[in-house]
Amino acid sequence: MGLYDENDISLRGLGEVKNADFVFAELYTSLMLGIKIERLEEAVGQKVVLVSRKMLEEDDGNIIIAAAMEGKAAFLVPGDPLIATTHVNLRIKAKETGIKTRVIHGASIISAVVGLSGLQNYKFGRSVTIPFIAEGLAETPYNVIEGNLEAGLHTLCFLDIRAEKKQCMSIKEALKTLLAIEATKRKGLISKTRLVVGIARAGSTTVVVKAGPLNEVLSHDFGGPPHTLVFPSRLHFVEAEALIQLANAPRSIWELTK
Amino acid sequence: MGLYDENDISLRGLGEVKNADFVFAELYTSLMLGIKIERLEEAVGQKVVLVSRKMLEEDDGNIIIAAAMEGKAAFLVPGDPLIATTHVNLRIKAKETGIKTRVIHGASIISAVVGLSGLQNYKFGRSVTIPFIAEGLAETPYNVIEGNLEAGLHTLCFLDIRAEKKQCMSIKEALKTLLAIEATKRKGLISKTRLVVGIARAGSTTVVVKAGPLNEVLSHDFGGPPHTLVFPSRLHFVEAEALIQLANAPRSIWELTK
Repeated sequence: MGLYDENDISLRGLGEVKNADFVFAELYTSLMLGIKIERLEEAVGQKVVLVSRKMLEEDDGNIIIAAAMEGKAAFLVPGDPLIATTHVNLRIKAKETGIKTRVIHGASIISAVVGLSGLQNYKFGRSVTIPFIAEGLAETPYNVIEGNLEAGLHTLCFLDIRAEKKQCMSIKEALKTLLAIEATKRKGLISKTRLVVGIARAGSTTVVVKAGPLNEVLSHDFGGPPHTLVFPSRLHFVEAEALIQLANAPRSIWELTK
Repeated sequence: MGLYDENDISLRGLGEVKNADFVFAELYTSLMLGIKIERLEEAVGQKVVLVSRKMLEEDDGNIIIAAAMEGKAAFLVPGDPLIATTHVNLRIKAKETGIKTRVIHGASIISAVVGLSGLQNYKFGRSVTIPFIAEGLAETPYNVIEGNLEAGLHTLCFLDIRAEKKQCMSIKEALKTLLAIEATKRKGLISKTRLVVGIARAGSTTVVVKAGPLNEVLSHDFGGPPHTLVFPSRLHFVEAEALIQLANAPRSIWELTK
C-alpha cells in the first residue's frame, strides 16, 4: 500500500484488489498514519478485513490461507511487501499449501528516505532499528553506525514502533538513546556536532527533512510520526549541496563530516 | 512511476499528474520495460514530454525549470525518484530558482528485490553496480561482495544499463564478469558453488526469482531484462526456507553458505 495513506497504492495494486474475491489488510508491521479503513474500502470498492498480529503470527495467517483456497485473496500491507518476516512466512505457507502468490510492490521507507535525504544509495551500509530504551540499552545501533562510518558509509536508522499502542519513537527519543549509549562507551562517536538527518512523515504532504549537527536536529520540531534518522558518513559534494538546499543544513556542513 | 509499466504509478502520483499544467518524463535512469509513452499519456490524461539525458544533464533540466516557472510541472521518473543524482541535481536547481518541489514516491528495485528474495533487509550491506566488462574489469563489485560477506551481510548487485542502446546486463553476463575478476584475484570468493539469487523483471507479472549455486543460476533461463543479482551471506532459517520455497533453491542450500 505504500507509505502514508490509501492513495499510495499503485494502479496495478488497485486493479488486483478490485478483482479479488477476498480482501485483507494489516496495519501493524508499519504504521500508515493517514490511512482510514473506510476510505480504503471506498478506494478499492471492496470490504476489507483487518487482520491482527495474533491472526497473522500466532494463527499463521490461516484466515488468509483459507480464503485463498476458496478464491482469489488480496492481502494489503503497508510499505513494500515482504520486508517483514511475517509476510515472507505467509508466502512460504501459501506455497506449501499449493497456493500461487504474486507480489505487487509499493513505495518503501528504505528508498524514500534515501531519495528525500539526497544521499546516494550505493553509499549506505547496513541499516538498523533503534529500539525503545525501555527494552534495555541496546548497543547494536551504535555499533552499526560506527562500523558504517569507519567504512565511509551512511546509516539508515528505523525508529521502533509499538503498533499495538500506536507508539512511534521520535527523532528526539532516538538521539537521546544514542547519547545514552555514547555516555557508556565514551568513544566520541555520537557527539553534539555529529551530522544527522531527521525525516518525518516520508511520503506525506507534510514531510519534513532536516539536516544539521545532532544538537540542532534534537531540538528541531518535526511534528508527528513516523520519524526516521540517517547518520551520513563522508559526503560527495552533490550530497552536501542537497542537504543544504533540501534539508536546511548549515553551510558549515563540511565541518560536520570531517 | 515504479518498476515496470504505467500501472505502477500510485493513485497519489496519478492525481498530481492530472492536476499538472506540464508533464515531463524520462525513461533512461532506469528501464521500465513494459512502459509505452502513449499508454502513459492515456493513463494520466495528459500530453507527456519525453526528456532526454542531454536535456536533463547537459542542459540542467532547463525545459522543466522553465515550465515550472509558468505553472505546475510534473516530472515522471522510473522507480523511486531521486535515487539518481540527476534528479537530486534538478531538485537543488529548482530550489535555487525559488521553485517549490514535492516528491511522490514509487516502488523501488531496492526494496522489491529484498522482498522478492525473502532475505531480511537489515542483513544487507552496501549495494554495488556491476559494470559492463567492456568498460574494463572493475574490482569494486568483487571487493564490496567480499567485505559484506566478511561482515555477514548480503549484497544487492545492480546490473549495468546502457539506456541509449536499450542494453541491460544479464545475470549470466554479470556472473561471468565476476568469475573473470575471480580468475585474477584467486581468492575462491566467487566459486561455482557460491549461493546466488537471480531476479528478473521485478514488479512485472513475469518475474523470475531463482536461487542456487552459481553455476546453476548462470545457466538458468531468466528471460528478458532487467536482471538483478543478490549474493547472500549466512542465512537465517526463514531466509533459507524462503529461498527454497519461493526461489527454487535446492534443499542443500545450507551447504552453500557455510
